[in-house]
Amino acid sequence: MGELLGVAVLGAGHMGADHIRRLGRVVSGARVAAVADPDTDRAREAVAGLDGVSVHTETEAALDAPGVRAVLVASPGPAHEEALRAAFARGLPVLCEKPMVPGSAGALRVVEAEARLGRRLAQIGFMRRYDAEYRRLKELLDSGRLGRPLMLHCVHRNVSSPPGFTSAMLVESSVSHEIDAARWLLGQELTAVTVLRPRSSALAPEGLLDPQFVVFETEAGVLVDVEVFVNCGFGYQVRCEAVCEAGGARVGEQHTMVVTAGGEAREEVARDYLVRFADAYDREVQAWVDATRRGRVTGPSAWDGYAASAVAEAGVRSLAGGGRVAVELAERPPLYAGSGG
Amino acid sequence: MGELLGVAVLGAGHMGADHIRRLGRVVSGARVAAVADPDTDRAREAVAGLDGVSVHTETEAALDAPGVRAVLVASPGPAHEEALRAAFARGLPVLCEKPMVPGSAGALRVVEAEARLGRRLAQIGFMRRYDAEYRRLKELLDSGRLGRPLMLHCVHRNVSSPPGFTSAMLVESSVSHEIDAARWLLGQELTAVTVLRPRSSALAPEGLLDPQFVVFETEAGVLVDVEVFVNCGFGYQVRCEAVCEAGGARVGEQHTMVVTAGGEAREEVARDYLVRFADAYDREVQAWVDATRRGRVTGPSAWDGYAASAVAEAGVRSLAGGGRVAVELAERPPLYAGSGG
Amino acid sequence: MGELLGVAVLGAGHMGADHIRRLGRVVSGARVAAVADPDTDRAREAVAGLDGVSVHTETEAALDAPGVRAVLVASPGPAHEEALRAAFARGLPVLCEKPMVPGSAGALRVVEAEARLGRRLAQIGFMRRYDAEYRRLKELLDSGRLGRPLMLHCVHRNVSSPPGFTSAMLVESSVSHEIDAARWLLGQELTAVTVLRPRSSALAPEGLLDPQFVVFETEAGVLVDVEVFVNCGFGYQVRCEAVCEAGGARVGEQHTMVVTAGGEAREEVARDYLVRFADAYDREVQAWVDATRRGRVTGPSAWDGYAASAVAEAGVRSLAGGGRVAVELAERPPLYAGSGG
Amino acid sequence: MGELLGVAVLGAGHMGADHIRRLGRVVSGARVAAVADPDTDRAREAVAGLDGVSVHTETEAALDAPGVRAVLVASPGPAHEEALRAAFARGLPVLCEKPMVPGSAGALRVVEAEARLGRRLAQIGFMRRYDAEYRRLKELLDSGRLGRPLMLHCVHRNVSSPPGFTSAMLVESSVSHEIDAARWLLGQELTAVTVLRPRSSALAPEGLLDPQFVVFETEAGVLVDVEVFVNCGFGYQVRCEAVCEAGGARVGEQHTMVVTAGGEAREEVARDYLVRFADAYDREVQAWVDATRRGRVTGPSAWDGYAASAVAEAGVRSLAGGGRVAVELAERPPLYAGSGG
Repeated sequence: MGELLGVAVLGAGHMGADHIRRLGRVVSGARVAAVADPDTDRAREAVAGLDGVSVHTETEAALDAPGVRAVLVASPGPAHEEALRAAFARGLPVLCEKPMVPGSAGALRVVEAEARLGRRLAQIGFMRRYDAEYRRLKELLDSGRLGRPLMLHCVHRNVSSPPGFTSAMLVESSVSHEIDAARWLLGQELTAVTVLRPRSSALAPEGLLDPQFVVFETEAGVLVDVEVFVNCGFGYQVRCEAVCEAGGARVGEQHTMVVTAGGEAREEVARDYLVRFADAYDREVQAWVDATRRGRVTGPSAWDGYAASAVAEAGVRSLAGGGRVAVELAERPPLYAGSGG
Repeated sequence: MGELLGVAVLGAGHMGADHIRRLGRVVSGARVAAVADPDTDRAREAVAGLDGVSVHTETEAALDAPGVRAVLVASPGPAHEEALRAAFARGLPVLCEKPMVPGSAGALRVVEAEARLGRRLAQIGFMRRYDAEYRRLKELLDSGRLGRPLMLHCVHRNVSSPPGFTSAMLVESSVSHEIDAARWLLGQELTAVTVLRPRSSALAPEGLLDPQFVVFETEAGVLVDVEVFVNCGFGYQVRCEAVCEAGGARVGEQHTMVVTAGGEAREEVARDYLVRFADAYDREVQAWVDATRRGRVTGPSAWDGYAASAVAEAGVRSLAGGGRVAVELAERPPLYAGSGG
Repeated sequence: MGELLGVAVLGAGHMGADHIRRLGRVVSGARVAAVADPDTDRAREAVAGLDGVSVHTETEAALDAPGVRAVLVASPGPAHEEALRAAFARGLPVLCEKPMVPGSAGALRVVEAEARLGRRLAQIGFMRRYDAEYRRLKELLDSGRLGRPLMLHCVHRNVSSPPGFTSAMLVESSVSHEIDAARWLLGQELTAVTVLRPRSSALAPEGLLDPQFVVFETEAGVLVDVEVFVNCGFGYQVRCEAVCEAGGARVGEQHTMVVTAGGEAREEVARDYLVRFADAYDREVQAWVDATRRGRVTGPSAWDGYAASAVAEAGVRSLAGGGRVAVELAERPPLYAGSGG
Repeated sequence: MGELLGVAVLGAGHMGADHIRRLGRVVSGARVAAVADPDTDRAREAVAGLDGVSVHTETEAALDAPGVRAVLVASPGPAHEEALRAAFARGLPVLCEKPMVPGSAGALRVVEAEARLGRRLAQIGFMRRYDAEYRRLKELLDSGRLGRPLMLHCVHRNVSSPPGFTSAMLVESSVSHEIDAARWLLGQELTAVTVLRPRSSALAPEGLLDPQFVVFETEAGVLVDVEVFVNCGFGYQVRCEAVCEAGGARVGEQHTMVVTAGGEAREEVARDYLVRFADAYDREVQAWVDATRRGRVTGPSAWDGYAASAVAEAGVRSLAGGGRVAVELAERPPLYAGSGG
């Protein structure tokens, strides 16, 4: 398979540093060739111990650095559109963290730009598609053994939300994972969304509507409900139950070690997504590296990134008092036929 | 505690026969004194082997039979109002199967009749309040250890629906258990309801909207969602998960024997409610017999029966295309202060 | 089925008082007619609120009291032999708590006495045979669906042992339940036993060998291992896993309410056997009352009581340093053909 | 961290080919530099698609090939001793699949040879130490939160045994994993072993004693029992329950997706160890590559390999009718102080 894939990583924050570690020390067949971050100190810290990495402040300089053959975008969302266009301009394959681009208008511009290229270069970081349990669920649904799906019941809980987290971000950021997972599991687009507001937890910051209860409808009439609760306090839990005509299937219980003490049997609940989905991130990046080295682009497409944005936007309108809001999608370019939802 | 409590059982169908067996052979302190059923053959069959039971075709004759000191109503719903009035007229304590009376107007008349008596005589057959798991959940919520409740996620699945089951009956009959359980667990009235319609299962009879997804709101802003699916084919499942500010709690998983064979670990799922809730029915009737012999009336009240009817009626309007429908309750008579929701 | 079965209860201690409550207020078809206990104060306390009960200090007086048609023996073990003989002399059916008689010699005398009568009068209180999960396991094994059984792995844990509990009592008293359950589940006699001694827990009283690990062999070569740990501190746990040629089955996990809080998912573990096996005791006594009223004797026989004693005695010899000890059983009288193991 | 670690892989059979795939396409920082196998066709097949790999028939030629800086031994057991000596002679770090050397005499010679070198070069392939659940259990036991361990209950089940599998191999090969896991989890040597023989399954090949039940004792009096059943037919199951003074902990239940259909809730059971322990193998090899590139040797030592052989040998003597057999270990060279058990 020839030499190692040289990757330029854009952004060396929490997520970027984790991807640098993954490319440098976990997955096979890749090396970090360049890093760009306005904060060069943290960029240098993130690549400590790795050889042959150049550090830059500007995206374009990193993309043009020697040995760069692919790009991983882990910079803040508002910088993604420019980064994707720069990668497209150079013909570089790119793995872009979610959200692909904040707002569906920008997301649609990316889709159109890639469609004009006439070939796929971008894979979007919806890593649940690489989780072992979700894959098993997808396989089971696709097999038809349970008949047609009728409902998905989803739960998405975080211990606490970061500072500055807004009510809209529960839908735009947290639920975007369920939006993509539902489109992928069902192979259908989401056509309407209703956001309901239970009373807020005393543990939620003042003014944050948390939890929320989101109900999606699909083009074939499947109902997808999501409890999103980002200050639940008691652990990171992601569950999904598919209810079908001939049976149901549930993932996300994650039973592992059972400890019995003091009159109770206990099982640990993961504290955050880097614990729960550590293997999924590894598999996602390994799959991207492997495909890229073979000259292929697979995985979630720019269209999937756009669809998630469009659905989330409708959700935010519903949250703002709009009741049930229909989702309007642009026409899907032929390049994305068969991709994602 | 003196002599055995002589009970007149009205109705000797599926449920009535089961209660006759329970009174005659399972619970302590009671005996079946009289049975009324238009079909005297099946009435006689139901009391075979029991001594001292008179069999009647008319309700009033059974209530006036020698030795009758209490009444158990297991006749079809439309006959309940008359049966309750007859029991009230004689001052007889009564355990009335649900629905107390079909339609909230009739239910309100029963409430008013009992309120005029100035003392409670009726207990309504919401037997989930006697299930060991539900009681543990209620105790936990009441303890305050998990903080205030924010959401209840409920699942109610039957293998298949009986002939003649209508789309409205999923709400009126099946979900009425969840309506009462939610009012009881939360200690709050339900104030609005929205019924959503996923696509229907191929296993559902032509024209039946099944499954349905019902969302209730309570006076304190708790959201209660219920998947009701009466032709799920794969078993009888009743689950309830309470999500609170400081934790969650789930009942209804019912793990018992685990069998590992042929590459799978399997656990049996109950086939129907008489299996899943057998102990709850026993406890309910034992509690009613015990209280009655001490001259007391406890358990779900006529008000609880009325409230369930009123909420279910709003649900049926929502199902018929009404979107979110607010629940209007009559004023609660002082006799029922502190009772139920 | 005629009038209520009048029962004389011998012994009004912890277990006796619980049976008096059960006969008087839980099961159907019986009443407490007489109680005998040297401590008449506690006997009177145990029957408070029940009508028509005579209180005695002597066994014989209670058996001869008016209305007595059956006997429940809950006195201390050393008094059982005399009580059983007195019941046999009067032809009274008897439910005798375990151990039937301490020591296999006395147990064999009871077997011989009943065999001379030529009909069964005694049922022994091995209540696990009435536990819903154990019955399901027995049914599965008998069905042959899993092939022949090869091993049973058992766990028997108590929070703490009562004062005066000796190392031998772990085998004689605690493990006697597993001895009977294994004989019953497998339909085979146990032929040898080896008691192994892990290091003792710091929570065990000085000098008590606790836990112990006991391995039984059956006549068909099935291996039955039992962890018995009576000062485990963390709960009452009884588990049994059958390993067969075509699969395995496990009971005793007892999952019920799952509480998630503080980073852990927790399930309550029962504190003692009266909680874990409450339903089994109820079913056992109801079954005995029902059979007795129909003039039948079913359930565990005196032979089962004797076999348990003989196996336990061999276990105590092994514990005392005897290594593997063979079990010697007397010849089984024809009266007990097909009974128990 | 400089250039990729060039690894010579000895043996290109089932296990060797899997390790070649792992080194070439999964783990980071390594590359396959040479492969040795008498069957050069299957060696070439195993390295198809990898660049810069030389293929050899002889071990020594592979170790001397250009770019080789470490060795992975996956040849048949009888070839291990020579391979380890050849690696030691060249000062090459080596990861050696288990068993390190068949028979404790040969294993002791390897220990002595490495001790003479005065530094560790060998890591033995006991991959359970790298399984996430086992690591969590080890951490919990080491924390002291559950008090001192008293017993380990282990289960080791395979669907079926390969042709030629002998009764002794259940102990030598299958149970060797439990031997190492117990030594590692408890930090103690095993001092005696008793192998018990339940009746054999009808599914076991003629003459194979399967299942077996093995009981180990440790120097501190902990009892370790292992059910080993290599023709169980129903799945690959590895479980371990630690019973301690203040609580217990269990791993190996492996609950993931729960499918409810046809009246049962089902969970898939893994079919073989490459499924169940796929992640453990990946972590083991990654840890070895990382340590080797930093010039360190960590993980299970040659002493651990020797101890496992010595204990297994005692087990085989017990199986042959020796009853309880004491384990005799040579004196531990200072090089291995603190290593393993």
